[in-house]
Amino acid sequence: MAFGDVQQAHARIRPYVVRTPLLESRTLNDLIGARVLAKAECLQNAGAFKFRGACNRLLQLTDAQRKAGVVAFSSGNHALATSAVGRMFGVPATIIMPADAPKAKIEGARANGATVILYDREKDDREAIGADIARKTGAIIVPPYDDPHIMAGQGTAGIEIVEQAQAIDAPLDVVIAASSGGGLVAGVATAVKHLSPRTAVYAGEPAGFDELARSLVSGQPETNAPGTRSICDSLQVAKPGKLTFPINKRYLAGSLVVTDDEVRQAMKAAYQHLKLVVEPGGAVPLAALLAGKLDVSGKTVAIVLSGGNVDASVFIEALKG
Amino acid sequence: MAFGDVQQAHARIRPYVVRTPLLESRTLNDLIGARVLAKAECLQNAGAFKFRGACNRLLQLTDAQRKAGVVAFSSGNHALATSAVGRMFGVPATIIMPADAPKAKIEGARANGATVILYDREKDDREAIGADIARKTGAIIVPPYDDPHIMAGQGTAGIEIVEQAQAIDAPLDVVIAASSGGGLVAGVATAVKHLSPRTAVYAGEPAGFDELARSLVSGQPETNAPGTRSICDSLQVAKPGKLTFPINKRYLAGSLVVTDDEVRQAMKAAYQHLKLVVEPGGAVPLAALLAGKLDVSGKTVAIVLSGGNVDASVFIEALKG
Repeated sequence: MAFGDVQQAHARIRPYVVRTPLLESRTLNDLIGARVLAKAECLQNAGAFKFRGACNRLLQLTDAQRKAGVVAFSSGNHALATSAVGRMFGVPATIIMPADAPKAKIEGARANGATVILYDREKDDREAIGADIARKTGAIIVPPYDDPHIMAGQGTAGIEIVEQAQAIDAPLDVVIAASSGGGLVAGVATAVKHLSPRTAVYAGEPAGFDELARSLVSGQPETNAPGTRSICDSLQVAKPGKLTFPINKRYLAGSLVVTDDEVRQAMKAAYQHLKLVVEPGGAVPLAALLAGKLDVSGKTVAIVLSGGNVDASVFIEALKG
Repeated sequence: MAFGDVQQAHARIRPYVVRTPLLESRTLNDLIGARVLAKAECLQNAGAFKFRGACNRLLQLTDAQRKAGVVAFSSGNHALATSAVGRMFGVPATIIMPADAPKAKIEGARANGATVILYDREKDDREAIGADIARKTGAIIVPPYDDPHIMAGQGTAGIEIVEQAQAIDAPLDVVIAASSGGGLVAGVATAVKHLSPRTAVYAGEPAGFDELARSLVSGQPETNAPGTRSICDSLQVAKPGKLTFPINKRYLAGSLVVTDDEVRQAMKAAYQHLKLVVEPGGAVPLAALLAGKLDVSGKTVAIVLSGGNVDASVFIEALKG
């Protein structure tokens, strides 16, 4: 996956995606001591950046493939996105989700007309379930991150960030995007490092699921300990992606790790100062800035607020903190 | 105040305001049975459309006036906006606010560097307090709505709505904006009826503060009973504005009245489907649609979500509902 793929994806999906705004709050700038530009991907179709990758993939299906449908396994946002794109283009979607995924995400996928199959996160192998369905029905598997079309689609957010920052004369010193499988940050880094090589691109991860931070340090794919918990339901993988890690290793300056409390504070700050509903995983880059995980004093920093699909009970806890 | 004033305001304030997105949710469309385009003015600077009018007014001060500063009386958003614009242009601002205004708004005005004077909503006369300060300091009074520059500034949201709807090939059947003093809906109606005469423009009001609805029916300015309460802190006036009412009488098709419960449900719907933090008053047009106050079946409707400055306790109550 190279920058040309991101450019092609950008042209392909543009009529179907929201060009989400790059928002700024003076108060937030003062709190952080930097100019912070927030790419509001929570305002994307289906409430998360994942719509971009799924859209780029589904637009390249043949007519026969469109009829057979698609199957996706996902902890939530990729499920919502694939079902929403499927609905938009009339492609039947089967989604395999963990039984403990947020209700908002499970109900959302069903509302989009998808067939939802729930599995046990600890016991079942979601990839095996997906492969089995694909074999039986001829459906095409739409992976959540380890796929060049998916990475290229997510990278279109990076093209927009650079264009939008240029439009307001704000050369970017730093860009931060959350990482789970690493598709978003791989795509964004590919775009940003091509268009603005001097910009440093960082991933953000929740404590306990900091496999990318450790992998970038060791140079090898590191795994997370099983049984770990985090409020960031959308950022939980065991190890870096096979296709995403080499890209992230090449482009990223590092990965910033934040605690659940730091994430809740960032969700509250996004509520107060940006008027946005941001889910835990989507708030990680803002949490990293507010908690001072990187010295950005006087710099211009773009952060991706990658999604806004969060159960009310979790959001309320963050507001009370 | 005519359409030409709105056009001039649009050119004048464009570099300083956020061109807020016109957002759409498939799920919300399905719930309402119409195509609903939400103008997210909660993402405006200072968290509300009021920034537009204050910006248009302060940009027309002379150098001497800028030094003497401005004084504004406001239940909240106009305070936040005037203080934010004052800060942006280096104009000292004194803000007269009711003591029971939301903390988020009082603290926000102070964070913007304004001098905040609190008054008793039942006993004191905020206009007299403002006039007194203006007389003593030479400060210019920036009224919340009864001012042609303020109305013209708010009307720029209407120009953007029509432009943004045209850009996605969505001719507008209906536009709805909340009304308190009526400056927003007067400005928006002036713009929309000029650019798209076939579009019906409605106000939205909370029950108990439905003076405009009754005034439009009777043809005379009607007043609200004193002592009434509403969750919509930003939509509480005693009677229609002197300058705004003739404009609203000319252009509006009516005013839709909603209850506090309907407002809370709309705040929750904006959270779920649009990922936006909308304050009670800002959610009134969405509440009117969700509660079926107008038959919009199969139509295309733009609503102004006019602000997002809401205390966490009020937002939490809405999410729990």
